Amino acid sequence: MGKENQTRYGLLDREDISSILGSLSKDNLDELCSEIRQFLLDHVSQTGGHLASNLGAVELTVALHRCFDTSCDRLIFDVGHQCYTHKILTGRKNQFDQLRQFGGISGFLKPAESPHDACITGHASGSISVAQGMAHARTLQHEDYSVVAVIGDGALTGGMAYEALNSAGASKEPLIIVLNDNNMSIDQNVGAMNRHLQHLRIRPKYLRMKKDVKQALSHVPGGGNAVNFLSKSKQAVKSAVLPSSISMFEQMGFTYLGPVDGHDVLAVCELLEIAKGMRKPVIIHALTQKGRGYSFAEEKPNKYHGVSKFDVATGLSFQKSTPNFSAEFGKEMVRLAAENPKICVITAAMPSGTGLSQFSKKYPKRFFDVGIAEEHAVTMACGMAKQGLRPVCALYSTFLQRSYDLLIHDAAIDSVPLVLAIDRAGIVGEDGATHNGVFDVGFLRQIPGMTLLAPSSFAEMRSMLQTAVCHTTGPIALRYPRGGEGSYQADNSGSDCVCLQQGTDIVLVSYGIMINEAMEAAAILRENGVSAAVYKINNLTADFSNELLSQIVCCGRLAVIEDVVHAGSIGQSLAEEIGRQHIDTEWIRLFNTGSSFAPHGAVRRIYEYYHLDGKSVAGTCLEAIQA
Amino acid sequence: MGKENQTRYGLLDREDISSILGSLSKDNLDELCSEIRQFLLDHVSQTGGHLASNLGAVELTVALHRCFDTSCDRLIFDVGHQCYTHKILTGRKNQFDQLRQFGGISGFLKPAESPHDACITGHASGSISVAQGMAHARTLQHEDYSVVAVIGDGALTGGMAYEALNSAGASKEPLIIVLNDNNMSIDQNVGAMNRHLQHLRIRPKYLRMKKDVKQALSHVPGGGNAVNFLSKSKQAVKSAVLPSSISMFEQMGFTYLGPVDGHDVLAVCELLEIAKGMRKPVIIHALTQKGRGYSFAEEKPNKYHGVSKFDVATGLSFQKSTPNFSAEFGKEMVRLAAENPKICVITAAMPSGTGLSQFSKKYPKRFFDVGIAEEHAVTMACGMAKQGLRPVCALYSTFLQRSYDLLIHDAAIDSVPLVLAIDRAGIVGEDGATHNGVFDVGFLRQIPGMTLLAPSSFAEMRSMLQTAVCHTTGPIALRYPRGGEGSYQADNSGSDCVCLQQGTDIVLVSYGIMINEAMEAAAILRENGVSAAVYKINNLTADFSNELLSQIVCCGRLAVIEDVVHAGSIGQSLAEEIGRQHIDTEWIRLFNTGSSFAPHGAVRRIYEYYHLDGKSVAGTCLEAIQA
Repeated sequence: MGKENQTRYGLLDREDISSILGSLSKDNLDELCSEIRQFLLDHVSQTGGHLASNLGAVELTVALHRCFDTSCDRLIFDVGHQCYTHKILTGRKNQFDQLRQFGGISGFLKPAESPHDACITGHASGSISVAQGMAHARTLQHEDYSVVAVIGDGALTGGMAYEALNSAGASKEPLIIVLNDNNMSIDQNVGAMNRHLQHLRIRPKYLRMKKDVKQALSHVPGGGNAVNFLSKSKQAVKSAVLPSSISMFEQMGFTYLGPVDGHDVLAVCELLEIAKGMRKPVIIHALTQKGRGYSFAEEKPNKYHGVSKFDVATGLSFQKSTPNFSAEFGKEMVRLAAENPKICVITAAMPSGTGLSQFSKKYPKRFFDVGIAEEHAVTMACGMAKQGLRPVCALYSTFLQRSYDLLIHDAAIDSVPLVLAIDRAGIVGEDGATHNGVFDVGFLRQIPGMTLLAPSSFAEMRSMLQTAVCHTTGPIALRYPRGGEGSYQADNSGSDCVCLQQGTDIVLVSYGIMINEAMEAAAILRENGVSAAVYKINNLTADFSNELLSQIVCCGRLAVIEDVVHAGSIGQSLAEEIGRQHIDTEWIRLFNTGSSFAPHGAVRRIYEYYHLDGKSVAGTCLEAIQA
Repeated sequence: MGKENQTRYGLLDREDISSILGSLSKDNLDELCSEIRQFLLDHVSQTGGHLASNLGAVELTVALHRCFDTSCDRLIFDVGHQCYTHKILTGRKNQFDQLRQFGGISGFLKPAESPHDACITGHASGSISVAQGMAHARTLQHEDYSVVAVIGDGALTGGMAYEALNSAGASKEPLIIVLNDNNMSIDQNVGAMNRHLQHLRIRPKYLRMKKDVKQALSHVPGGGNAVNFLSKSKQAVKSAVLPSSISMFEQMGFTYLGPVDGHDVLAVCELLEIAKGMRKPVIIHALTQKGRGYSFAEEKPNKYHGVSKFDVATGLSFQKSTPNFSAEFGKEMVRLAAENPKICVITAAMPSGTGLSQFSKKYPKRFFDVGIAEEHAVTMACGMAKQGLRPVCALYSTFLQRSYDLLIHDAAIDSVPLVLAIDRAGIVGEDGATHNGVFDVGFLRQIPGMTLLAPSSFAEMRSMLQTAVCHTTGPIALRYPRGGEGSYQADNSGSDCVCLQQGTDIVLVSYGIMINEAMEAAAILRENGVSAAVYKINNLTADFSNELLSQIVCCGRLAVIEDVVHAGSIGQSLAEEIGRQHIDTEWIRLFNTGSSFAPHGAVRRIYEYYHLDGKSVAGTCLEAIQA
């Protein structure tokens, strides 16, 4: 993305583009959208990022910026991965070569980045709640601006969105919801709400039918009375010829406008202006196509949902797909399911992300995609486990936060043998703070009766998964990272804690993928004449072994390396144990993500940021030992 | 409840009552229900417990037990506080004098108590998820039993219920949902779903209208064709004369039966039998009256939702209402709101439980009851705070667990000045494990940028609330217990940590209501010649003061007394600090609820169970010191 490329977008390169949006003709708007699409392809193919969802939301976003001023109007993109056009139109176009990179712009809404970003986004289904709160604040403070939430049909499967519809609809508070309906989550959308939207999508057909019925009746002698009779009740007339499903939003207190072609800027603008003028809760149903305008993405929108660098001409990724924990998990689940017919799998709208595509094809009856509904996923799985199945619930660590209460209430209190496969544990990198899985160790270890295992290699994941599906005393979880294994590829999963390397000067303790950093640190320390013992913890909920504690007594120095926040970490517990057992130490250092939210950037860059990488760990230890 | 009273219920006293339910005549069934109602009044008036919801569900439960065998069929009561009749009919009638008491039967479903209890209940909105899981397990394992969830209209405002409807409806898995619609949460039900049910409640009127329209059209020459035309589309005919709202459940894939009079056993049974035979997802809409059959409870169902001992004849409580933290909170909010027009309050279906009835009357526009929707409550409040209001979100500690992800994602990452008023923190007593607020300290301290304050007296709550509504650097929470203050009634909220009493032999550290136990322990120790310093922590997220740490160094002995689980506790952090700072101690003891779920029983009894009461703490300390 050299500077020389930054002038070839015509309209989009005009500095005043966002302020002249309102005066652009239809042709100009089409031209602009096509430039934006080209810009997205040019840049995301170089940096990686979310592609298909952004291609699908170009016209919608241009329309929103034509009708609203996001410096005062509040525009909330649910999830936020479709906000690139918004960023382009709000002064961040020239920062797209640094998209999602350390120090560059975020791939999600981020108020710290721009006053045009109304709030943090990243997780699904919360936009209507935020919007309602903002709308109430506006009204109570006698201010005058619009509040608009843009939510996908996928996010609408989340319970929070329903809680908010229920609350916002009844409140009568003016706000606009734009339903960006592409008939997809990251993968195919599921559930009854999706079927409901399917009915709405074919509404134009019904509108024609309505006219036909009215005409038919009016040609029948006396039939006019029937029309009048029906017309008396607005409800009844509407219901007569429209699919009754249309009233789902209307019943919740919203005025429903649409469906509208979400790729027709002026058509969307028309509805936005109507909605703005209504001063009540309005939902605009816009039909869009995920991946629009890029044939590869149109054909396989889930493949192009989130991408690494790729060749625009061929659609092929420059990055070779390498073995990763998600794929290994999926493979092992297929194998285990063949052995044990009681095993089934639950995902919350992430069949491919969690590596379960093959499982879903091979065992469709034992595969449950419940939509973006982590609460339901966990509790439904508990119901399955209570009645004799062996459910494995595969969720990303950050999204499992949604299930915290259910893990306590439905799984732990009654000691239900639920298996949790926690993907994306630890630092996920480019998606940043909203997506890091840095709380799971703390919140899971807090729950009585929970077992938490941390495989460090594919082999260990397989072994531990075998253990987990045979575990009968309460819920059990495996946490594993995004991406692949490191140089540690052994299987030492046989005990709760294992000594990988003896040493006399310092004890390094780690688990999961971070064991690679601990081993690297130990190697550097050895080169510098320091003998480091390395202990790997496999079971994060077991008591610390006497062997480990004795080793700490011997060495007098301890470093714990983890990819989680400090509070609730293993390091904290180990230091507590040292305190409570009056173990005399010379030096303790806990390496973790502290008590801050991580910036976005490549995983290794974030390790460095927190001094969690092997080199930093070794450096810190050496400094202290030599001090 | 002497033995002599246990024979006066006629039918209900028959040992084989549950097995002969199917053969009882309508008169006998009515008689039985009336006996059960009398039994409930006789017992709950003596023990306290949930009254109004149980009185409202008598016939419904008798009908369920007439149609299903809960030893194999799975019956899930959402929330579970309406399960008393179920317990009576499943062999636990003679244990009702010990209802909710330590060692006695629980007030909620509890599998450990009886195989007739399908799963743990206590929190709202999860029953459909559990039911779906169980139904899938049944089908996948080729078994043959029914799965029935009983859910109130209040619980239907929770997002999880919607996630489950969305998933269960689409699954086509046979299961039955009984919607126990009493038009109430604990307080008045709110939101659009409630209005939707209101439409359904008047359905019979529409059914008549439907007939009328058909007749009207068939009398019109040629009108018969119109009828035929409409009939071609089943959807259209149904929608023509029914409120379109009726299709909300139908659109989600359920067959909707009802509404039925939930106090007519045989009418309910008829629908249950139809539903059982349909082998698909069915929802039965039963209209019931909360408090049914007891005039005081019928009139004020929220007052008689959960009761302490009372006089059946007058409806008056034997227990004098005493000042409590909830009421003091409500009063202070009214005062603060008068000072600051930006303050508003959010509750999740607990306006009276959280002490906010007066606020809701005085400031209706600044008061938001969002229904049983803790996720939405927190995120909506974040939206308000982002736009300049000062929202105070009042939730019970145990229900705040539902908002964990939103506290991280919507409040903490962007440092939103949200105020959380956390009621029922610590041990709540008779409601037991599902309701104790023993996780909040751990999960809130885990969140970067969160501030957590712990008032120990009403005066401190007022001061801290004043601090909280002026706090601008991120979310801030106050945790306070169920019930009133103890002998500690001072206001020492000026610093993060305060020394209440100097001492030389041991340091006692505590916070919140537990400070009373610490003070009592210190007094007993003093009587036994041990000089105990008492430190009270006000800010649970601040670093430990040097003064406190120095005092620990001096005394060499430390006891921390808390009403939370061990993991994530202040004691754990303090021991960690001691370990990391290489502070030499002789003896550390952390008093907390460990890593187990508490049994139910009176609060003080649970303190004793965990050795958290002043006497136990002193005893343990003395033993160790004298050892």
